[in-house]
Amino acid sequence: MPIGRIPVQDVRPQVDGGLRPVASVVGEALDITASVFREGHDAVNATLVLTDPDGVEHARLMTCDNPGLNHWVATIAPERMGWWSYRVEGWSDPFGSWDHDATIKVKADVDTELMLEEGARMVERALAEVKRPKEAKALLKNVVTTLRDTAIDPLERLAAGTSEEVTAELRRRPLRDHVSCSPSYPLLVERERALAGAWYEIFPRSEGATYDPAHHRWTSGTFRTAANRLPAIAAMGFDVVYLTPIHPIGQAAKKGPNNTLTSTPEDPGSPYAIGSPAGGHDALHPDLGDWEDFDFFVSQAARHGLEVAMDIALQASPDHPWVQSHPEFFTTRADGTIAYAENPPKKYQDIYPLNFDNDPAGAYAEVRRVMQVWIDRGVKIFRVDNPHTKPVEFWQWLIADVAADHPDVIWLAEAFTKPAMMHTLGKVGFQQSYTYYAWRNTAAELREYVEELAGDASYYMRPSFWPTTHDILTPYMQFGGPAAWKMRAVLAATLVPTYGIYTGYELVEHVARPGVEEQIDNEKYEYKNRHWEDYEPGGAKEGQSLAPYLTRINEIRRAHPALAWLRNITFHRTDDEAVLAFSKRRTVTEPDGHQWEDVVLVIANTDPHSTRTTVVHLDMPALGFESHEGFIAHELLTDQEWAWYQDNTVVLGPGTDLAHVIHVKRYF
Amino acid sequence: MPIGRIPVQDVRPQVDGGLRPVASVVGEALDITASVFREGHDAVNATLVLTDPDGVEHARLMTCDNPGLNHWVATIAPERMGWWSYRVEGWSDPFGSWDHDATIKVKADVDTELMLEEGARMVERALAEVKRPKEAKALLKNVVTTLRDTAIDPLERLAAGTSEEVTAELRRRPLRDHVSCSPSYPLLVERERALAGAWYEIFPRSEGATYDPAHHRWTSGTFRTAANRLPAIAAMGFDVVYLTPIHPIGQAAKKGPNNTLTSTPEDPGSPYAIGSPAGGHDALHPDLGDWEDFDFFVSQAARHGLEVAMDIALQASPDHPWVQSHPEFFTTRADGTIAYAENPPKKYQDIYPLNFDNDPAGAYAEVRRVMQVWIDRGVKIFRVDNPHTKPVEFWQWLIADVAADHPDVIWLAEAFTKPAMMHTLGKVGFQQSYTYYAWRNTAAELREYVEELAGDASYYMRPSFWPTTHDILTPYMQFGGPAAWKMRAVLAATLVPTYGIYTGYELVEHVARPGVEEQIDNEKYEYKNRHWEDYEPGGAKEGQSLAPYLTRINEIRRAHPALAWLRNITFHRTDDEAVLAFSKRRTVTEPDGHQWEDVVLVIANTDPHSTRTTVVHLDMPALGFESHEGFIAHELLTDQEWAWYQDNTVVLGPGTDLAHVIHVKRYF
Repeated sequence: MPIGRIPVQDVRPQVDGGLRPVASVVGEALDITASVFREGHDAVNATLVLTDPDGVEHARLMTCDNPGLNHWVATIAPERMGWWSYRVEGWSDPFGSWDHDATIKVKADVDTELMLEEGARMVERALAEVKRPKEAKALLKNVVTTLRDTAIDPLERLAAGTSEEVTAELRRRPLRDHVSCSPSYPLLVERERALAGAWYEIFPRSEGATYDPAHHRWTSGTFRTAANRLPAIAAMGFDVVYLTPIHPIGQAAKKGPNNTLTSTPEDPGSPYAIGSPAGGHDALHPDLGDWEDFDFFVSQAARHGLEVAMDIALQASPDHPWVQSHPEFFTTRADGTIAYAENPPKKYQDIYPLNFDNDPAGAYAEVRRVMQVWIDRGVKIFRVDNPHTKPVEFWQWLIADVAADHPDVIWLAEAFTKPAMMHTLGKVGFQQSYTYYAWRNTAAELREYVEELAGDASYYMRPSFWPTTHDILTPYMQFGGPAAWKMRAVLAATLVPTYGIYTGYELVEHVARPGVEEQIDNEKYEYKNRHWEDYEPGGAKEGQSLAPYLTRINEIRRAHPALAWLRNITFHRTDDEAVLAFSKRRTVTEPDGHQWEDVVLVIANTDPHSTRTTVVHLDMPALGFESHEGFIAHELLTDQEWAWYQDNTVVLGPGTDLAHVIHVKRYF
Repeated sequence: MPIGRIPVQDVRPQVDGGLRPVASVVGEALDITASVFREGHDAVNATLVLTDPDGVEHARLMTCDNPGLNHWVATIAPERMGWWSYRVEGWSDPFGSWDHDATIKVKADVDTELMLEEGARMVERALAEVKRPKEAKALLKNVVTTLRDTAIDPLERLAAGTSEEVTAELRRRPLRDHVSCSPSYPLLVERERALAGAWYEIFPRSEGATYDPAHHRWTSGTFRTAANRLPAIAAMGFDVVYLTPIHPIGQAAKKGPNNTLTSTPEDPGSPYAIGSPAGGHDALHPDLGDWEDFDFFVSQAARHGLEVAMDIALQASPDHPWVQSHPEFFTTRADGTIAYAENPPKKYQDIYPLNFDNDPAGAYAEVRRVMQVWIDRGVKIFRVDNPHTKPVEFWQWLIADVAADHPDVIWLAEAFTKPAMMHTLGKVGFQQSYTYYAWRNTAAELREYVEELAGDASYYMRPSFWPTTHDILTPYMQFGGPAAWKMRAVLAATLVPTYGIYTGYELVEHVARPGVEEQIDNEKYEYKNRHWEDYEPGGAKEGQSLAPYLTRINEIRRAHPALAWLRNITFHRTDDEAVLAFSKRRTVTEPDGHQWEDVVLVIANTDPHSTRTTVVHLDMPALGFESHEGFIAHELLTDQEWAWYQDNTVVLGPGTDLAHVIHVKRYF
């Protein structure tokens, strides 16, 4: 491929060489960079051409921020959703060349008349070759006359040709020679929730479930009773309420409490064993209510400012209607039976995995139909269970097909698997990914991992940080105590823009089933009434919930838009390897045009068992200061204020706080 | 773009996402890697498909060398020049899946008959769907029968289905499902000299030039007298003799000694001021001889095993014939004059730069014609002066056009400029690049730089290391003394496969023109008779030349093919920041098929002024050993042998040696 008269190289970001889109959200700043250079000494310049979803091109001059590396940059922040694209145009800059040479030579009185005449000819070209408004034309015509007017002092003529007005006009509507284009790279701009949000998970059947000790019987919670929990979730400041599967549950090989293989008819079973004669993925569990009840839940959530996310687990109980209606969606063994899930020699007889290879078109269409059922009822966020056990190309098709009609639908991949699969699911359309956060505990691990996520990976995979899940309770959380639970929530909520907790996190449910890194008496297999009322003022357990702490974290997130971005993170050095320090910075433009600088600094002791006294060495320019300046450090969790400088001593321990979240404020 | 049923991601190497070729030379090992993975637990496999210049495809199984990263690799070493390409095919592996599951389950007696029947069906498919030789068919048919023979012990039947023969056959001719291709990436394989060689520069006019003190007149050396120097250059072990420009020199504004602006008619002028009434770039300087003499020089070089490289400096003296015949090849100023070279306010009135924009087609064709003149006379290597002052797209066109007829032509870019231009010149066709080696002096600088060059950059830019040039004499070389000159030659000759020296290097010509990092009395502006005979045995300066040292270096290079490769380098840790340690390792296959392992270890003290005693900590696996093993360290410059282990003390200083070059030998 021809290199072009003015080479444009290394346009970034790009995902898979431009085969897949760079991901961004509305209003998110994105630096487009390129290496643009030319032979010899003449001036070179670069234009970023951004094409909006309607195909309209928007050109802007780029800035050379590193001449030694010929590195050019322009920052964009697309203001609406859709498929954008960008390219970089390198060009020879006759005005820049003349400006540089003439300024040196005329001042040294070398070739003075020649240089001024060449300037006049250059401006004549700029007039002839580029369309300009009338005033600009008049300005440039005057310049031509002045440049040639030998009655005037040459330095004055030079000044006329290089004036601010002329420079501004020739930057706005430049004379460009040898324009050379890079390839065009796709950019998919999605809604802000694709990047930032606070999630709260519930098992709807648990919320409002009641136990009758006389008869040893549970009554399931319903959409109506679960809706009663919504005000509390909203009051804590969450944005998304995510429901584990709400479909009918199979009876075949139903699991008992704590994942036992035997169950009684009283056991509700795992909601991940989807499908019964009552229906499959497009149906509601009869105990939870009917469609009206579901719609009520969704509308109540909206009333409280919460979006509903649904759990999509594409697998079937042996009782799923698909087993009869679509046996081709499953794998049939040599003996004619349908294959259940296995990890040889272990068998999971309550689950039939889907097989998309027997009838891809049929299986794809059926899943697409199911998705539309929920989209039509107002659900626009889907948390996908184990997407890495289905063909990647299936997700690529499904997400694109849904997006064609519903570009506001967001998919979160629960793919706790190897990096290649996780990253590729991001590349093919998942807006968000659970990450390895639960297993990144030391300061060094966290820094390395977040630098990876906020670096090149950020262009196709958006992280969602969860300190625990209903499947994950690491030894760190089992034994870290409430201090660890608070600190891990702070880090999840501030390191990346999207984080979430599973219900019960606020109660520090840290006891694991022996031998398994998962909660004991896991809600997956039984009802759980947490008696939230006990934690209310005057209740028996008042003060024992982390809810107020989580509420404060979410308040801070809402007040500080810097925390809603990912790539704006900077890590700072500390003298203690257990202490992590990082900041986020963002220039915020209010709807009225007012701009302000939001800077948040987080410092956390990742060792929940001991107090660390250490010095934090701040990268002052990253906070917007000169090295010698000071600032007001407003600790937002405790509402304290300190005078801070480049190097500051912090004391962080389980007895006081493991984390500071600091609003960095200028003195004036 | 669809992701494919079995995703294949991150195929490497690739240059500019496959827009430009990966560069390699005949016989050079090249690892092709990819990330290949699939959903769920079934077995995945990968095939590298290499397409040769005739379009014939060669498939080979890849190896998964890092299951956690789903990283697959195959090493290729194309055996002939031309445009190759490669792609990676990911596929589902029914044999692998069955082998894994059946081995576990049959041994645990779980689903035994079912697993064996599924194995039989899988082998039946392997028979039906893949063409095989008769014996392989017989083998697999037997396996089918055995797998189904309930009279035989199930473990025996399993063993039959998973035997070495069956595995080998199903690796050689696998049953592949869901084959998914990566894009195809171009690979340009060039001749070995494009990667490896030792160069020696001369000014032909200096070799055999004589001075008549009586009349204060020089007589120029000629191609015939310069040819007398060839045996000595060949005896030192060089591969390429490179001539500074040999064309007629202009008289206009001719430079005098030491780059002075005034000259006498006796001064020969700079050979870079090309063109006079005697001719231009397609002509010979009359003082050097005629075409017969030139042909004699080239043929004598070949007789001594030397290739001739010519210096191509595309610029003109005001006396160049092009100024009259092709004024459109230059820039005409507003006053009608032709523009000379400038760096405002400085003027270089002896040089007219070419302008390729007035008549690109004409200028390109004329340069192409000139190149053919030299190619037709047997010159196949061109050292291009300042290629970064001509349009990059011109070089791309020229090199490709020449290569279409003469794929053995090699171009070395003398582009001492910013990285973007240097790298891009490599991407558009230059086989070699001078580098920043002259300015990389500390051990840390050298390591960082060579790791860059031997890393991703190696796929499009091959380094050529020169400790000095006729334009570059760094303070390090001015003041390092002979010890530095020896050590810098060793490093140049061993860090990368191509290195070179300018004539006089062996005489440690270290005196700079005051205020300039360039030799005093530079040969660019005057004749220089070095009286080589003085350094011969019995001569007045016997023992004062580094020629024997350089000879030994080149002997070592020839005896050790590991030094002819670039990417096979490993750096080792030392306790002294001045001491650099690295090794190169290569499995060498002799024409008779015999294979041996060549391992060379270099340790250098980069501080030429003090002796350093330090410990070198060897990465033993990189040398082919276990950590606890020992080896014979054969120091090749001094012919000493030591018993070495993982950690070894070295003493390196100007009093003894600054560098060890060690052949790493096994005890047995």
